[in-house]
Amino acid sequence: MERIPILKMGGFLLVTIQVDMHDRLALTLQDDLTAQIIRYRARGVMIDISSLDMVDSFIGRMLSSIAGMARLLDANTVVVGMQPSVAITLVELGLSMKGIRTALDVEKGMAALQAGVLEADQGQDENTEI
Amino acid sequence: MERIPILKMGGFLLVTIQVDMHDRLALTLQDDLTAQIIRYRARGVMIDISSLDMVDSFIGRMLSSIAGMARLLDANTVVVGMQPSVAITLVELGLSMKGIRTALDVEKGMAALQAGVLEADQGQDENTEI
Repeated sequence: MERIPILKMGGFLLVTIQVDMHDRLALTLQDDLTAQIIRYRARGVMIDISSLDMVDSFIGRMLSSIAGMARLLDANTVVVGMQPSVAITLVELGLSMKGIRTALDVEKGMAALQAGVLEADQGQDENTEI
Repeated sequence: MERIPILKMGGFLLVTIQVDMHDRLALTLQDDLTAQIIRYRARGVMIDISSLDMVDSFIGRMLSSIAGMARLLDANTVVVGMQPSVAITLVELGLSMKGIRTALDVEKGMAALQAGVLEADQGQDENTEI
């Protein structure tokens, strides 16, 4: 159980974080996730953190770098299921989670990703027209 | 992190098993899952075991009892993402996973559940006509 499973759902990927993250596991997740974004031509990544009672700066950084990598591969990232206590801690720690979109649950995250993809597609259409 | 998160997707629930199961965690999962089936009136449950390299009789029994409880609450259960080595072990151990449907991945599992729901609905319609 040295890997965090990545589930493909439509054009999106879903990752559920439920174990304590450490360096090697985070690196494996980044490798697996970037590989699968390319393999499935995924346009979005959802990261469910509903089972995390706390998020420290290590996990905050990991989420930010995953979002950054996904963006470079043309995929949006949405963090879903954040617990109230986690939101409080993040603000108190001064971790802004810059560049990360959040949604209440997987369904709302999926809707946000679909809206994002539509926006992006429309943006491309506009560019093509010019 | 003493709970396995349960994600709601449409009318179905998704559980990803990625930590070592022990008695208390299995009981908590059963409690949470049955509560959420009722809360969301879920018609199906998907259990992803793609990160499990091995399934012992404890996990086999747990999956069977979850499927049994879900059935009593009018929800189908599909186990998705089973690794080849797990299938081999299960047969060698003589664990038949009776009453459990399987599917290759979450998308196929979702399709199976939707087909199951359709069948069930048609079944009900037929019964109503008689």
